Amino acid sequence: MSVDVTEIGSIPDAWTRRHLLGLEDLSREELNIVLDSAEMFRDATDDCTRKISVLAGHTCANLFFENSTRTRTSFSLAMRRLGGDTVDFASGSSSMSKGETVIDTAKNIEAMGISVVVCRHRTPGTPHLLANNLRCSVVNAGDGPHEHPTQGLLDILTIRQRRGTLEGLTVALVGDIQYSRTARSNIWGLKKLGAHVIVCGPATLVSPMWRELGVEVSHNLDEIIPRCDVLNLLRIQFERQSTRPFPSVREYAHLYAMNRQRMDRAKDGVLILAPGPINRGVEVTTDVADGPQSVILEQVTNGLAVRMAVLWLVCGASIREAE
Amino acid sequence: MSVDVTEIGSIPDAWTRRHLLGLEDLSREELNIVLDSAEMFRDATDDCTRKISVLAGHTCANLFFENSTRTRTSFSLAMRRLGGDTVDFASGSSSMSKGETVIDTAKNIEAMGISVVVCRHRTPGTPHLLANNLRCSVVNAGDGPHEHPTQGLLDILTIRQRRGTLEGLTVALVGDIQYSRTARSNIWGLKKLGAHVIVCGPATLVSPMWRELGVEVSHNLDEIIPRCDVLNLLRIQFERQSTRPFPSVREYAHLYAMNRQRMDRAKDGVLILAPGPINRGVEVTTDVADGPQSVILEQVTNGLAVRMAVLWLVCGASIREAE
Amino acid sequence: MSVDVTEIGSIPDAWTRRHLLGLEDLSREELNIVLDSAEMFRDATDDCTRKISVLAGHTCANLFFENSTRTRTSFSLAMRRLGGDTVDFASGSSSMSKGETVIDTAKNIEAMGISVVVCRHRTPGTPHLLANNLRCSVVNAGDGPHEHPTQGLLDILTIRQRRGTLEGLTVALVGDIQYSRTARSNIWGLKKLGAHVIVCGPATLVSPMWRELGVEVSHNLDEIIPRCDVLNLLRIQFERQSTRPFPSVREYAHLYAMNRQRMDRAKDGVLILAPGPINRGVEVTTDVADGPQSVILEQVTNGLAVRMAVLWLVCGASIREAE
Repeated sequence: MSVDVTEIGSIPDAWTRRHLLGLEDLSREELNIVLDSAEMFRDATDDCTRKISVLAGHTCANLFFENSTRTRTSFSLAMRRLGGDTVDFASGSSSMSKGETVIDTAKNIEAMGISVVVCRHRTPGTPHLLANNLRCSVVNAGDGPHEHPTQGLLDILTIRQRRGTLEGLTVALVGDIQYSRTARSNIWGLKKLGAHVIVCGPATLVSPMWRELGVEVSHNLDEIIPRCDVLNLLRIQFERQSTRPFPSVREYAHLYAMNRQRMDRAKDGVLILAPGPINRGVEVTTDVADGPQSVILEQVTNGLAVRMAVLWLVCGASIREAE
Repeated sequence: MSVDVTEIGSIPDAWTRRHLLGLEDLSREELNIVLDSAEMFRDATDDCTRKISVLAGHTCANLFFENSTRTRTSFSLAMRRLGGDTVDFASGSSSMSKGETVIDTAKNIEAMGISVVVCRHRTPGTPHLLANNLRCSVVNAGDGPHEHPTQGLLDILTIRQRRGTLEGLTVALVGDIQYSRTARSNIWGLKKLGAHVIVCGPATLVSPMWRELGVEVSHNLDEIIPRCDVLNLLRIQFERQSTRPFPSVREYAHLYAMNRQRMDRAKDGVLILAPGPINRGVEVTTDVADGPQSVILEQVTNGLAVRMAVLWLVCGASIREAE
Repeated sequence: MSVDVTEIGSIPDAWTRRHLLGLEDLSREELNIVLDSAEMFRDATDDCTRKISVLAGHTCANLFFENSTRTRTSFSLAMRRLGGDTVDFASGSSSMSKGETVIDTAKNIEAMGISVVVCRHRTPGTPHLLANNLRCSVVNAGDGPHEHPTQGLLDILTIRQRRGTLEGLTVALVGDIQYSRTARSNIWGLKKLGAHVIVCGPATLVSPMWRELGVEVSHNLDEIIPRCDVLNLLRIQFERQSTRPFPSVREYAHLYAMNRQRMDRAKDGVLILAPGPINRGVEVTTDVADGPQSVILEQVTNGLAVRMAVLWLVCGASIREAE
């Protein structure tokens, strides 16, 4: 019931990174290595349901200073399906609240024989700080509003699986762009792979400054819909907002929810993505979320495949460097 | 140190259920398949201390919307002793508090390559809702006051191990019947296997309506004691009650605690069960809880055996269906 | 990627303990068995990064009534690197808050087929109570201010690795001695292995009563520094103190922080230990903590090795006894 390790082989020579900190740094070739590896793992493990022992003996530490069940679990399952082990260090746990620095916490974890630290922190650059101070690998699982590279990669992999290529596609990121690390990682990745990116949402959540990243800015979803091959509906993070950036949820949904009427005006074969957890009736109506164009659950399965690929690549680069 | 998988073989042809939602649905034959399988696993693994790799590569997700250390741990250990893996989704964790529906949460978990979801929720029917919406297996680990089938099965297995059969035995469920899922699951299982069931407790906790389930109703423990082969002392759930259904703990213990004096009036070989955690001096006195008639700790070990059997059966039925 | 079990062999005949409750009980020979075993595991597993399957099929339960990420994780990783499995029972979890006694909780855990219980509790003697009532092994992971034997052992192992022997060394324990289980375990272990021990700190944290344990008492770090081979800088536990035992943190640091000036007056090759998490600038300045004399991170790695050795020894003694 487990996959033969020899099917997998060693990591590509062109991959030399011990860390994955963001998609801004990656070349087009490196992006394709991760995506190709993820597809290989997805195929070799029957949609991520079988084990493959390429990281047996290795341990991944989830160092999450912000809560996350979903991303943390996805990384844990990915590591274990590679034959490795995981330990969790949750925010608010004892050692983190005892006045220790982030680097000291991470160095202590590393000294327990850890191969890779997966880090989420509300401060942008924390994973970079760790990468500069640890000998083990570091993967960014979200640093404030900066980057969330595996989310970007799983979104891109899902589009590539359905459409074959990103080249020439028009992808709209809709909704809460301002504080979204998912938006930033998507933009870097999508543009390098040849897609045209539109960011779309109310002016309070989408500033004209985004044009500096080489993307189109829109405040009118209805205007851009007929041009889009992909709509990635970012979550309105009610739990993070003290004041709402729009008058009411109903008003937001009226202007930006993806619903049947808007689907009718969209291209044939348009893909609906959402990073979840989704607010049904806010970013997307139920018929669209559960409809044939929705690839929301494929994103989740691809998340595992992407994380298997990333863990395998960064650990492999560490091992090769040590040899 | 692990058991040869070939000793176990495949699941019985008569078992076709991908889910275990309650004992009300099960036939007498199905009940016996679970109990026989549990005994097989208990024997094959030396009282559940050795591993057996029949579910290697499979992952079980514990989706507990209500707290439970004990049941969750028992399911986790059962899955891992079958060679499988587990992930926990605890109540109050981030994704569950972000306004997502239960079905969306479960579908997301399923999309991570999960074979079986073990669900506890305070709303009766939640596991049934999931079973109708997921392709993977679902096991009910307690849905409000409705059912807790593995608790019923482990109680019944413990009685069967000591007495050989349930046929003709008189089993009293004593105490907090009203809101007890354990009581309901015991009643369905015990009656199908031929036992006579008495529910006994103060009128505030035991309504005459229970007669509709075909059981005897009593408010007087002393009166029924001489007729009972088994006394299952349900926990008084102080932590769930805002107003007490009896004047004082002392008064409850006076009328319903199983103590030495009551043991002297009981049948020879009477069995004392309690689902735990027990309140010593409330439902049961220390000398009885730790005495030779008490099978309280055997219940815990049988809980593991029953959960190994259930996970093996429902996953096996899923695999067979997929083939 | 895993170690051949036959390299390890069986536990030494001279080790007969099923429990590790404290270093006060251990003979010099037993201390050396643990230290030698820890070195063997450290070497055999490449600084605790590889697996060795000597406890395959066994499960360790972490029963922590006090919070601890670090110690708990270290035990978990140690057990899993021995091929075993772990389950956590955290303080404040449901079963523990339902009025159950500690012994009942532990017996329930044992009945799930657990081989070893690792226990932390704020009441001194709790692990001893469990050891008297369980058939499985018990390891003390800290009982109030009493003992924390694996911390003592890892401190001693770290000194022995650097200096070859403890015999004739002068070791100072500096800081918060009064409520420190680490201090007590260190004292018992160090003295049996032939070291001279000084406890040093403000009079509010270091009473003259400590002389009864056969150690030197000092309130003046500067006076003792030139004589010390090892300085073990115990953590000032701000989070446990309602009133501070010294006027200000600055004053404490002025008198007791290990800094560059004090290092200049210390012996060549003095070792700086700290159990962590460290308060930089309080017990130790950054240049010293990160300097060449600091063995703080070696302590963490040795903690894993010591816990592998302890789990292997106590489980081995249980297995031998059962045969």
